Amino acid sequence: MTAKIISIGDELLIGQVVNTNAAWLAEQLNLIGIKVDEILAISDNGNEIERAVKSAISRHDLVITTGGLGPTKDDITKQCLAQIFGAKMVLDEKILASNTAFFKARGYELTEINRKQAEVPDCCEVIENTCGTAPCMWFNTPHGGILISLPGVPYEMKTIVERDLLPRLKTLNSGQIIIHKTIMTHGLGESFLSERIASWEDALPSNFKLAYLPKPGVLRLRLSAFGSDENALNATMNKQLGELHQLIPELIYGYDDESLESVVFRLLKEKKQTLSVAESCTGGYIAHRITLIPGSSEIFNGSVVVYAYEAKQNLLGVTLRTLEKYGAVSEPCVIEMAEGCRELFHTDYAIAVSGIAGPGGATDEKPVGTVWIAVATPEKVVAQKFSYGDTRERNIVRACLSALDLLRKQL
Amino acid sequence: MTAKIISIGDELLIGQVVNTNAAWLAEQLNLIGIKVDEILAISDNGNEIERAVKSAISRHDLVITTGGLGPTKDDITKQCLAQIFGAKMVLDEKILASNTAFFKARGYELTEINRKQAEVPDCCEVIENTCGTAPCMWFNTPHGGILISLPGVPYEMKTIVERDLLPRLKTLNSGQIIIHKTIMTHGLGESFLSERIASWEDALPSNFKLAYLPKPGVLRLRLSAFGSDENALNATMNKQLGELHQLIPELIYGYDDESLESVVFRLLKEKKQTLSVAESCTGGYIAHRITLIPGSSEIFNGSVVVYAYEAKQNLLGVTLRTLEKYGAVSEPCVIEMAEGCRELFHTDYAIAVSGIAGPGGATDEKPVGTVWIAVATPEKVVAQKFSYGDTRERNIVRACLSALDLLRKQL
Repeated sequence: MTAKIISIGDELLIGQVVNTNAAWLAEQLNLIGIKVDEILAISDNGNEIERAVKSAISRHDLVITTGGLGPTKDDITKQCLAQIFGAKMVLDEKILASNTAFFKARGYELTEINRKQAEVPDCCEVIENTCGTAPCMWFNTPHGGILISLPGVPYEMKTIVERDLLPRLKTLNSGQIIIHKTIMTHGLGESFLSERIASWEDALPSNFKLAYLPKPGVLRLRLSAFGSDENALNATMNKQLGELHQLIPELIYGYDDESLESVVFRLLKEKKQTLSVAESCTGGYIAHRITLIPGSSEIFNGSVVVYAYEAKQNLLGVTLRTLEKYGAVSEPCVIEMAEGCRELFHTDYAIAVSGIAGPGGATDEKPVGTVWIAVATPEKVVAQKFSYGDTRERNIVRACLSALDLLRKQL
Repeated sequence: MTAKIISIGDELLIGQVVNTNAAWLAEQLNLIGIKVDEILAISDNGNEIERAVKSAISRHDLVITTGGLGPTKDDITKQCLAQIFGAKMVLDEKILASNTAFFKARGYELTEINRKQAEVPDCCEVIENTCGTAPCMWFNTPHGGILISLPGVPYEMKTIVERDLLPRLKTLNSGQIIIHKTIMTHGLGESFLSERIASWEDALPSNFKLAYLPKPGVLRLRLSAFGSDENALNATMNKQLGELHQLIPELIYGYDDESLESVVFRLLKEKKQTLSVAESCTGGYIAHRITLIPGSSEIFNGSVVVYAYEAKQNLLGVTLRTLEKYGAVSEPCVIEMAEGCRELFHTDYAIAVSGIAGPGGATDEKPVGTVWIAVATPEKVVAQKFSYGDTRERNIVRACLSALDLLRKQL
């Protein structure tokens, strides 16, 4: 069974609202093995709706529309659907009773405009909306497919889908299974990683598909498998993941959208160890990412942002000799920063970062994007140099992720 | 001129990625008077791409595709476009040189698959991508319209659109003028602010439209004006902005998406004053926001994140008596933190924040979302208590913005 989602509403076309409804719906359908071929956003315009719906029901087994079911003049989806299916509008007594109760519970009388909400095309099956007053309608189309019209309010839409539609659609779609696994990697760009795993990728079974999803500092690999035997798919998936892991063990830090800071948090917590951070060019971003995790205070004692030489000396004990001889963006400096930070906060581990985030501050030997990172452990200090690009924000994000990954490798 | 956006990528159809690219693009096009009629998301599949592009270029003046331009096997947009326009692939020497330099700067040699990225259909105009290696292509279609193919990486896409495409498309779409002004406010929620400005909003000319665009801690008001006489529109716009400012002078901190940290940075720089920050519940986020600004080292000496009592005492000189008697989330504690921070970093101003971001840490008197903020100036220390909601991430963002606004009012 393949599907198309049609999201109706002007707010989507002027960029005021991001279409999170469609992403959520697509994910839910996918999880029960229904492949979404297209997601379309159109305006609250009769001709557009008619054109889009007619085309969709002629090409897809399942069409789901969201939006345009409210009581105000700009909501016209219901009337359009009646016209498309050549249906008459009839008053649905059950909706009327439920909407009357809905308003009464909130201390309001039913108005004429609310009464209209209980009218539906006579050819549809009404599915109850327990969270609002807009009806959900199920149509069996002349092409042998299904069209479902849902309200656009996310909370109402999601409740109906989870409670009524997914179980019913799953029964109709039995037999077709899709599974996904996302592999989280750090340390190598798209083109280089793809070369390292080329032989593995080429040998993937034909019902497996690989996608590369890059973000600054992180490259996600999504492996999707299609078939009818769930156990067999899972077994092959695990085998493929095992083979991939053997090719790039040091690059894989987690699975299924886990963040690097979550991995580091988990490892430190398991070992009952603590962390502190000394940041120069990342300016507090590493501390921010860690402290976004609820309960991070269990492993995180604190951090310093030391922009000025003076702060590096006073707070972390970096020597003036090091700063003068090697500069703040240097291996000796980050090593002294990491050691000083570990002492200052009395932690087991400490991260130190110093670099040139840009746009200013570059020299011939140290262009924008040059970053030194050190990790102090109870036994030793490791340091590494990184060279990124020329955008301040991305350099900060990438340095943060490199630092977290360097720490992860010590844990 | 009307437009259609086609977003290409399986990740959009399984709900792994929300289509923020399309929302952003739609907003940008709207701002230069181009109406977006449809947004379509389709998979990385040759037949689907061909079908969608052919249909779109026959119906819309402007078609913009995003995605599918990467170097890996799942990226096929470029080949599809060549086929649709009956073009040959040719090596573009300029892209090749730029991509070679791109990799060289990062210490890599160009691989064969990177070399392929420099191949483009011979009928397109290449628009430079200074942030990545995927080419942006401009096609004049046989129907007299335009098709533009953009990379899907948001940062690359946005840079190209802002720098090259919007100015060019704006020229092509001249005659219809839309001007927008965004008023940045902090301190009052949507419903309360709308009540305060109701009389002004009701009296707006019919060609003016107001939109409320809330984000955590910031409420943007976008005032749009439509017409053909730019001078007259600007004059009325300025008059309206002046009237609005009289109604809510203390809530407006800037215009046109200026951030609170930029305003604070500008004010400190003008006065040649410096700042340091002591953060507890915001965990480095304030420092991060400030240090994202290029050149922030001119005014920003550094910060500490002091999660533990011990760090508050040792680094900032908060007294044990204060911590035991009032707790870390208290007026006396943030005042001592701000004073201690100002001394530690030898700055003119210091911000201190201590609160309960959640989900843990709440008590009966101090529920999740309770935050104390202090600002130390050369003359005095001011402190204020805030009560937010129960989401950790939003509490961190809102506390950061309240702190910056409290500082702004002292400058």
